[in-house]
Amino acid sequence: MNPVELIRKKRDGKILTSEEIDFLITGYTKKEIPNYQFSAFLMAAYLKGLNKKETEWLTRSMLYSGKVIDLSFIKGKKIDKHSTGGIGDKTSLILAPIVAAAGVYVPMISGRGLGHTGGTLDKLEAIPGFKTNLTLQKYKSIIKKCGAVLAGQTKEIVPADKFIYSLRDVTATVESIPLITSSIMSKKLAEGIDGLVLDVKTGSGAFMKKFSDSKALAVSLTETARAFNKKIITYITDMNQPLGNYVGNWLEVYESLKVLQGEKVDDLLELSLYLSGSMIFLGNKAKTINEGIEIAKYMISTGKAMDKFLEIVKLQGGDISYLKNPSKYPTSKIHEKVFAARNGYVEKINSFQIGIVSLELGAGRLKLEEKIDPKAGIIFYPKVGMKIRKGDLIAEIFTDKKESVELIKKKIEQTVYLSNKITAPLKLIRSTMA
Amino acid sequence: MNPVELIRKKRDGKILTSEEIDFLITGYTKKEIPNYQFSAFLMAAYLKGLNKKETEWLTRSMLYSGKVIDLSFIKGKKIDKHSTGGIGDKTSLILAPIVAAAGVYVPMISGRGLGHTGGTLDKLEAIPGFKTNLTLQKYKSIIKKCGAVLAGQTKEIVPADKFIYSLRDVTATVESIPLITSSIMSKKLAEGIDGLVLDVKTGSGAFMKKFSDSKALAVSLTETARAFNKKIITYITDMNQPLGNYVGNWLEVYESLKVLQGEKVDDLLELSLYLSGSMIFLGNKAKTINEGIEIAKYMISTGKAMDKFLEIVKLQGGDISYLKNPSKYPTSKIHEKVFAARNGYVEKINSFQIGIVSLELGAGRLKLEEKIDPKAGIIFYPKVGMKIRKGDLIAEIFTDKKESVELIKKKIEQTVYLSNKITAPLKLIRSTMA
Repeated sequence: MNPVELIRKKRDGKILTSEEIDFLITGYTKKEIPNYQFSAFLMAAYLKGLNKKETEWLTRSMLYSGKVIDLSFIKGKKIDKHSTGGIGDKTSLILAPIVAAAGVYVPMISGRGLGHTGGTLDKLEAIPGFKTNLTLQKYKSIIKKCGAVLAGQTKEIVPADKFIYSLRDVTATVESIPLITSSIMSKKLAEGIDGLVLDVKTGSGAFMKKFSDSKALAVSLTETARAFNKKIITYITDMNQPLGNYVGNWLEVYESLKVLQGEKVDDLLELSLYLSGSMIFLGNKAKTINEGIEIAKYMISTGKAMDKFLEIVKLQGGDISYLKNPSKYPTSKIHEKVFAARNGYVEKINSFQIGIVSLELGAGRLKLEEKIDPKAGIIFYPKVGMKIRKGDLIAEIFTDKKESVELIKKKIEQTVYLSNKITAPLKLIRSTMA
Repeated sequence: MNPVELIRKKRDGKILTSEEIDFLITGYTKKEIPNYQFSAFLMAAYLKGLNKKETEWLTRSMLYSGKVIDLSFIKGKKIDKHSTGGIGDKTSLILAPIVAAAGVYVPMISGRGLGHTGGTLDKLEAIPGFKTNLTLQKYKSIIKKCGAVLAGQTKEIVPADKFIYSLRDVTATVESIPLITSSIMSKKLAEGIDGLVLDVKTGSGAFMKKFSDSKALAVSLTETARAFNKKIITYITDMNQPLGNYVGNWLEVYESLKVLQGEKVDDLLELSLYLSGSMIFLGNKAKTINEGIEIAKYMISTGKAMDKFLEIVKLQGGDISYLKNPSKYPTSKIHEKVFAARNGYVEKINSFQIGIVSLELGAGRLKLEEKIDPKAGIIFYPKVGMKIRKGDLIAEIFTDKKESVELIKKKIEQTVYLSNKITAPLKLIRSTMA
């Protein structure tokens, strides 16, 4: 096989065979196929598409570019959740302990924040001492012991994805549904899971702004998971406003603690219950999703979920004294409040802009090498449909950066579109595929 | 400007500005934009196209990536010819002396053969001592002295093209009309010409097999030349059979000598007269193309063209004793004849296959580094419409390679499709744009 012939074939809109796709992925991972050929292939694949079978083959080749974790020594179902990323989405921190407390194993490999969205690893590392960089042995022993583990990707897991993603990032080939599908699914399959609950975000703060794109991605991910005989429940959920009220790493840990301790953070609690209920159902610990949701509620109300969270944090090296007594956590140099400039009903929120502001306050990064400030972020109160009066507190900001505070306060004000007419609240769960 | 944004813009089918195209070309030539980004851009440009203006801007940026030769010290028009390449196309060797003898300057920068087509430089270098690797000073002094120069591209001329072409070759982005246009036209414009006669080949032995593709390329090249205020006459000519009968480097020099000495090699003479007549017309030495053709005929019949050829060869270091006495030229170890296996009319010729056979005999190369055998090649007699009898001599082969002679004789036989029905000869000049 010759890479030029395969690039030409895709360029001309033809369907590649599984062997041809494997030749490209294996060759690229082994650095036998140079970047410049693989980027031409990526652009051809971006513009001509990959069909369902090609996407499955691509996922398979990427998966087997590295190690597939074997968790068969653990009896019981291993179920993970994946979200395509949004603003204030800290559900992983809430789900993992709830579901593990319910007896379903949660092997969770997460990523870091980039651009306007945060990452689970950064949030966890806001807890002093918490380690996400685990050896495979440690990973296995933690999940065996407490039923959940929250770790970062190791080099042995899907090395192809790291190379391909870096190249896509600099060649304008990121926003391709088959390429996104293979990237997500190969990493999830490598965890050694039996099933997956998928949360595809849609709206201004999501990677996919249009519902039709989110739907197409959801279908592609669901079909690919099923091609690998994995059980999957997929939700398309609203990301036109931040999830919960806290955005920023420690701030999101803090809000997760609130939910785990029974506080009713409307949308965040609702989504956490749907997702954990679905995971409990896929893990055979409930007969229906609704029964799963009831079990999840029970795990919160009895304190079992909170105990499990402390257990996980402790096993991963985190100092749980900060969780038991959050006031002990270091505070930002600046804590400023933002107030509404006029009356009105919240018609729309630019949640992408909330993500950017949080990044500017120090909570995020533009490049993976950059350091983040775990304390920094925003508490943001408005939700679409809410009635606001002039002078109401709409946000609080936390940062060590003095320079741009006034500008950022302006920006936050501008993210909230007020109308004189009553607006209906947003529907959180937009679509379900089970 | 950011390369990723520009790749994305082209990927999404938008029109780039002249500044954006210049940023890409200049950046790539200076190695500030890496291969992997440029190849993604090339694939996006291949699949989404570049419009007339973008093609002009691309050509301009490539042109000014290097030196533009200034021939303004020469009074009189400077006119070149360019062919998109075919089998047995040795017209450059015939035209240059005819047109120079008629008082029009011919600054000709040519390429080498690759794959199934030959290259003018290789043909010229079959003449012992002939140098095509000239300094700019030497180039200028030769054209000033004798009215024509036949040289290879130097590093200073359109360096962008060398880089871009190498990348296109390995990323399946060669067959793109705007990319081909900019590659050809930037090099021709760098010669410092006033006008150009263009010979776009069409058919089985051409780069463009379909007439519609050849036509599209001809239109693109013609429009781009005009955007640079160059006079241009464009022909689309048939390449469904070799031009003339001789294919191979020295063999083609030999056939050129025959034409220059007045022998009537039907199609080769006809095309040479059209092209040289057009060049003489563009060079203001004739009032019409037809008058130009008459002047060209006169240059042949009076021996002035042949004298001019000897003058050029001598000035470029070639040993003219071989031209005066071709029997002095070294002969191939093997000289075999191929005879017709049955009666019939020639219905079709696989001229691409003739190019490949010539390559296999040693006359061509698959990679630019490979050496060629100047003596090797084929004399191929059939033309579409010709009546052939069993046992007729259809070809002679010349090679030093013993191994594959029998196989090659078979292959040559198979290039000729014989029919029992009379077939009309092919029309040589398929279209003219003047």
